[in-house]
Amino acid sequence: MKKNKRIGVLIDELTGNPSKLYDSKHFCEKFDIAKSSLSEDIKIANEIFSENGSGHIESISGVGGGIKFIPGISDSDIVNLQNILIQKLSDPSRILGGGFLYTADIMYDSRFVRDMARIFADRFSKLNANYVVTVETKGIPLAAQVAFMLNLPLVVIRREAMYSEGSTVSINYFSGSTQGIAKMSIAKRAVRPDTEAIVIDDFMKGGGSIQGVKNILSEFEIQVVGIGVALEAREPEKKKIKNYNSILIIDEIDEENRAIKICPSVNL
Amino acid sequence: MKKNKRIGVLIDELTGNPSKLYDSKHFCEKFDIAKSSLSEDIKIANEIFSENGSGHIESISGVGGGIKFIPGISDSDIVNLQNILIQKLSDPSRILGGGFLYTADIMYDSRFVRDMARIFADRFSKLNANYVVTVETKGIPLAAQVAFMLNLPLVVIRREAMYSEGSTVSINYFSGSTQGIAKMSIAKRAVRPDTEAIVIDDFMKGGGSIQGVKNILSEFEIQVVGIGVALEAREPEKKKIKNYNSILIIDEIDEENRAIKICPSVNL
Repeated sequence: MKKNKRIGVLIDELTGNPSKLYDSKHFCEKFDIAKSSLSEDIKIANEIFSENGSGHIESISGVGGGIKFIPGISDSDIVNLQNILIQKLSDPSRILGGGFLYTADIMYDSRFVRDMARIFADRFSKLNANYVVTVETKGIPLAAQVAFMLNLPLVVIRREAMYSEGSTVSINYFSGSTQGIAKMSIAKRAVRPDTEAIVIDDFMKGGGSIQGVKNILSEFEIQVVGIGVALEAREPEKKKIKNYNSILIIDEIDEENRAIKICPSVNL
Repeated sequence: MKKNKRIGVLIDELTGNPSKLYDSKHFCEKFDIAKSSLSEDIKIANEIFSENGSGHIESISGVGGGIKFIPGISDSDIVNLQNILIQKLSDPSRILGGGFLYTADIMYDSRFVRDMARIFADRFSKLNANYVVTVETKGIPLAAQVAFMLNLPLVVIRREAMYSEGSTVSINYFSGSTQGIAKMSIAKRAVRPDTEAIVIDDFMKGGGSIQGVKNILSEFEIQVVGIGVALEAREPEKKKIKNYNSILIIDEIDEENRAIKICPSVNL
């Protein structure tokens, strides 16, 4: 196989299987080339990823080592994403009252979701977590995309225990958004004890819902090692959780003057 | 830029933006090459996609034309996927009683979801639909991946009208799975009238739920032009809907003998 074709095959296969560890033998045999030639191909592929700002190849040496592609995003693409989202989210017709904004179109837009997922994949790839966890419904596409990029199973916590989930564990928690007691439920089969999870959600106000996720996961001795939310509300300043990454902050929703203020998050 | 690097950049950009139409000027300017050289590069990229079984490049000629990458999957990869899913789903510990199987781990596994999505993207790319629609919750990752591959917005129909969805339209329908009246609700902002939709779901028994989706979409004069379900139940033989694609058929769940029979779908 010619060099230009090899690099194309390498990129197609790596980007189609993010975070999958490939034994270097895999490509040496596929291309029928020596390890030194493969190293050169990998170097070029890595240059391409770096120039396109789409991620990087990680090389793990030693026994059980190999290469894997970690999706990423350039700083300028993050700023571009934040700017376009700020513009879109500032449309006053999104104001629903009670401090709510209509955001479903953003959270269900596959290109925005992909770029947001790239940010979290980049931030959380080194954590070596076992799961990506979210609470239904609006954060599922984002969490699923992060899970795909990190090659991890997705766990979806339901609001109600569903029959099709088998045995479940449920908790009640205080939701600041709705100012009431809410419930969440997780399938026992979905998780193994003594593991680690990344939590992804579309929106965080006071952090009660994510604190609930931490609590329900702690029933399985699962530790939360990373938290990523797309949108964070400025108020309340004091959140129930610490150490989270967010992409944008909803600073103010002025219902009277129909004005919305969104800014890039300082917690990215 | 050297040829081997150009092809790598081309593949990285096309696979990262499936179904996006690129004016050929985009790559000619990026690479600083003539259209004839780009055509050669595209030919090689297309050969790579074809050999890897990952999709193909479609060339649209004339004004407003260009190239786009359509994800796909080889016939042998479909058979492989079906075989591994049959093996996984035949595990008797999945039997929940009442004709239910635990399938959440499959529907939340990013690699299985990606391969299933490739099948539907391949089948439905020529329909030129405006939306990919699903009903919460378990089919969302699959529907989101199909939406990503077809570069379409995802629409998630909720079970309950949520405040954060703004104004909604709701219907009641008869659900064969639960043998009762169920409700679904769609945000008015999520769709435009007189458009076309592809419906994706994780499971279909009698088709009542998908018939409900068709009904609620018809309130907006939206026509369903394609239907894809991951798993279909053999019974009832007579479905409420016609012309759908499914990947696997659950032939029989024998609760007494703890045996499950799954087979590849004839409706793919």
